[in-house]
Amino acid sequence: MFSFLTKSTEEEPLMPNNAVGPTALGLPIFKKLKNRRVVLASASPRRKDIFATAGFYPEIVPSTFEENLPHARFQGHLADYPISTGAEKAMEVYERLVKESPENPPDLVISADTVVVFPPEKDTAEGGDAHGEVSEILEKPVNKDDQAKVLGLMSGRDCEVITGVSIVYPTVEYPGFKVHSISNSSLITFYDNSPQTIQAYVDSEEGLDRAGGFAIQGLGGILIEKVQGNYDNCVGFPSAPFWRWLSELDADGTFDEAWDI
Amino acid sequence: MFSFLTKSTEEEPLMPNNAVGPTALGLPIFKKLKNRRVVLASASPRRKDIFATAGFYPEIVPSTFEENLPHARFQGHLADYPISTGAEKAMEVYERLVKESPENPPDLVISADTVVVFPPEKDTAEGGDAHGEVSEILEKPVNKDDQAKVLGLMSGRDCEVITGVSIVYPTVEYPGFKVHSISNSSLITFYDNSPQTIQAYVDSEEGLDRAGGFAIQGLGGILIEKVQGNYDNCVGFPSAPFWRWLSELDADGTFDEAWDI
Repeated sequence: MFSFLTKSTEEEPLMPNNAVGPTALGLPIFKKLKNRRVVLASASPRRKDIFATAGFYPEIVPSTFEENLPHARFQGHLADYPISTGAEKAMEVYERLVKESPENPPDLVISADTVVVFPPEKDTAEGGDAHGEVSEILEKPVNKDDQAKVLGLMSGRDCEVITGVSIVYPTVEYPGFKVHSISNSSLITFYDNSPQTIQAYVDSEEGLDRAGGFAIQGLGGILIEKVQGNYDNCVGFPSAPFWRWLSELDADGTFDEAWDI
Repeated sequence: MFSFLTKSTEEEPLMPNNAVGPTALGLPIFKKLKNRRVVLASASPRRKDIFATAGFYPEIVPSTFEENLPHARFQGHLADYPISTGAEKAMEVYERLVKESPENPPDLVISADTVVVFPPEKDTAEGGDAHGEVSEILEKPVNKDDQAKVLGLMSGRDCEVITGVSIVYPTVEYPGFKVHSISNSSLITFYDNSPQTIQAYVDSEEGLDRAGGFAIQGLGGILIEKVQGNYDNCVGFPSAPFWRWLSELDADGTFDEAWDI
């Protein structure tokens, strides 16, 4: 029943219902989360690492929600796409875990969805540098040629990385939980990379499984001149903005009922 | 004599005079550096990690140069300070290694020095937001109270991280080597952190040994809203700008004599 107990490894001490590690800062939000069941609805090792950097080790329960919302529905406000996908993921995991172990429901489920948009929406908006072009959510490349093509298009230009983060927590009223979401956006500026440089990157076989075809924290970093925004967001989870937001929600009393204060 | 051979560990296969690992991109500069003796004149594990991310494993020989150039000499053009310090480090290591093993001199010595400047020089320049204030190079805090004070001053504001990078390579003419340098600058924007948040960070005992009193890649990330510029530079070495610069120098024939092309 407590299948998550088997997730612990030697590096992470067994912490049933305690995601707050010994190195986490002594902030009110971490004190509040001590001895609560916190679940991250994502299989991404990068997100797990970003949480670990903050001294936080949530239980990992990947969502089974299929990321297939039609992009066209979000044209002009693409940040709503990862928010919608993230919220669906968090709700799916929350409801599943409540059903699986009604005597030990999660206190908080966190989910995230990250997309790469090119060109950035601010550039294609009226008055922007790329007005006339259409901002699109980039999928994973279908093959190496496609990857080289996309990286070539972005060469010398910016792309936008948007992560939607959702949380689900229990309530007394129907349907028994509430959802809150935020998004964070960062711009990544590529060097004017030559076709040879792009081909060398494609040949490394990195990035083929990543939306946009690159990994900023890996070999792909060599293609990138600079970032404007939160760096962790570019890797997959906007850590500092998330903790600040969660702290504000908590200070406003959002979780008082859920966590029996 | 080849004391650097003992530096290799289990994770890094023994690579005498070969810093180019199997995962490095197939770029001309990495092909050129194969089977050459490349030395990083820095003991920083963060810099070593940043090189490793690019698949590059230079021999590590920390400099004995004391970082004590008077800051006042660089007022108004503070980027020249880390460049001067970095160049001194690289030259000290190059000359020492040539003396130690004249039959196996380094082909390239790389050094770096990173400083934190507050307020950023662009802000204190005429017309800047903080005109009237004086940009200063921040030292390591002398104690926790000093750390809290500095982090409080930067709260809600920007600081500037500048890394000076120097390379030294052999020449036929006197004095037997040449030096080239660049610098890279990034802005870090702090959240409007409360005294309680700052105290929680200070209590973690991180950052006390870092100029400016924080580590962006550690728990200190939670204090930071965003970056404008190269992220690796904020951690201690501007990897992508460095490799691009080295590639350009190489394409211009800079190393032809040194490396017997």
